[in-house]
Amino acid sequence: MGLHPSVAAVRRAVREGVADLPADATLVVACSGGPDSLALAAAAVAEKRGRRVVGATVDHGLQEGSAAQAARVVEQLAALGADETLTARVTVDPGGLGPEAAARRARYAVLDQVAEHTGAAAVLLGHTRDDQAETVLMGLARGSGGRSLAGMRRAFDVYRRPLLDVTRDDTVTACQVLGLEAWDDPHNSDPGYTRVRVRRRVLPLLEEDLGPGVAAALARTADQLRTDADLLDDLADAAWERLRPADPGGGLDAGALADLHPALRRRVLRRLALAAGSPASELFHEHVLAVERLVTAWSGQRWIDLPGHLRAVRADGVLRVVPADS
Amino acid sequence: MGLHPSVAAVRRAVREGVADLPADATLVVACSGGPDSLALAAAAVAEKRGRRVVGATVDHGLQEGSAAQAARVVEQLAALGADETLTARVTVDPGGLGPEAAARRARYAVLDQVAEHTGAAAVLLGHTRDDQAETVLMGLARGSGGRSLAGMRRAFDVYRRPLLDVTRDDTVTACQVLGLEAWDDPHNSDPGYTRVRVRRRVLPLLEEDLGPGVAAALARTADQLRTDADLLDDLADAAWERLRPADPGGGLDAGALADLHPALRRRVLRRLALAAGSPASELFHEHVLAVERLVTAWSGQRWIDLPGHLRAVRADGVLRVVPADS
Repeated sequence: MGLHPSVAAVRRAVREGVADLPADATLVVACSGGPDSLALAAAAVAEKRGRRVVGATVDHGLQEGSAAQAARVVEQLAALGADETLTARVTVDPGGLGPEAAARRARYAVLDQVAEHTGAAAVLLGHTRDDQAETVLMGLARGSGGRSLAGMRRAFDVYRRPLLDVTRDDTVTACQVLGLEAWDDPHNSDPGYTRVRVRRRVLPLLEEDLGPGVAAALARTADQLRTDADLLDDLADAAWERLRPADPGGGLDAGALADLHPALRRRVLRRLALAAGSPASELFHEHVLAVERLVTAWSGQRWIDLPGHLRAVRADGVLRVVPADS
Repeated sequence: MGLHPSVAAVRRAVREGVADLPADATLVVACSGGPDSLALAAAAVAEKRGRRVVGATVDHGLQEGSAAQAARVVEQLAALGADETLTARVTVDPGGLGPEAAARRARYAVLDQVAEHTGAAAVLLGHTRDDQAETVLMGLARGSGGRSLAGMRRAFDVYRRPLLDVTRDDTVTACQVLGLEAWDDPHNSDPGYTRVRVRRRVLPLLEEDLGPGVAAALARTADQLRTDADLLDDLADAAWERLRPADPGGGLDAGALADLHPALRRRVLRRLALAAGSPASELFHEHVLAVERLVTAWSGQRWIDLPGHLRAVRADGVLRVVPADS
């Protein structure tokens, strides 16, 4: 009897996602108990081929009963056949971040420790194609170009997301078929979260009005934009290294900037502002375009104010970003 | 008394959009009678500064009363102070295209003739920032990467879109303030059109769920992606010219392809397939990725089937796209 198609889809994705790892590698599966990561854990065990699978769950301590929920996930991971299970407790310190961002930071910090502690070759995350589509749509609202639409990376540092081509439906069905009772995170139905609104209202309407397959199209677009953004960043890095000032207070030659393609010039100007201390979260594309006009539409105009009490000034054919009170 | 802000916004956009044209230039304003192009025409006359303004309307002959509507627009254009007005009648021949695409092709064909006939330095089109946002969202559903999200160009051939940073609301208000009675195209409320659904349902929901400013963010993203896509296409063209086969049946060196950045390699492979006759509208990113695996994951596998009864084959370290029956 063949595997159920949903189980097969998850297993195939995991198999391909860890194919390069040797038979004596340790894999950590980060598991919340939700259908995505539970299906991921089941597939990781099924596809372990001699490797050691560590099932890890993070207790953020943010919801009542979170310790009991973590204990339940650990039990499920053990029952699935994980070689080792562990609960990582974290204390989420908002520290200026939103609650979602703070929880995410705490989660990755403790997973980093788990990876080091277990000597893991990879930490697998259960994000699906639907998560990717939601991420792209949330990036649309930022309007900061390709990188903001590029979604989640398939891999970074020790982390891998083998399910980015698998639908959430397949993970839900895989859990049902395997008799795994997935946890329904109450956060996932709280419309106070942008992601929940995107999942429950925006994506269904897009599927209805733009045609089926929108989630898949968004995920495909993210893949292409990420590849493009990587190349553009590489090229901009190279241009920046070539043009960057030798000393911190130095500037960039306006003539050399004028010769760059706009796509690279804007990225180089952004790097100039960041290098001068302008905060990335406040430095918008509009600022960069305003600075660019000191290069492309120069008529002796005034400086451009930039976040971080800085200003971009052009003098003697050199563009500098300097403190606003200098 | 100062200008109303909406009138001022439209006029400023037009002023900047034609600033490079000499005082004896002829401008054609393409006007449907809708608020966008009517506000555009009014601004073009107000900002003419000695130039000749030709108001042109296209009668597609697709709706009952279209000739009367065209006559009314011509009257409005004359009343606004256009130096010359004209109606261009077209016959829309679907010829395999959808009705919208067929009408668009017919419209541009006749506007090309108007531009030539009047010796126009520019033909102004009334697309607003909202049109741009709608175009980006419709591109999202295609899922074919940056170019499909890059929206409408600010200028191409003789055409210019000076209102791409102006909101539709501003054009509507400008018409009201100026006492211009804009035409309400019944197509604009027909939910049978994807664009109408995007305008009336998708964008309002996005503004509600992702936060205000989504239309502006989409337009900004389009600008950035268009600039990026231009550079990437330039780089891919250069790589293609360097690697392309000398004879039509020739192929690309797999080693040289392997050395390219994926963002360029995929574009070069797409060009190879197009050059061999694969139809652009059927050649999807998935095809290109499959062909790419003949380069990046070569293990002596079979050919890859491509649209247009073609196949990509690798032999002796050379990648070719050849007829499927060869």
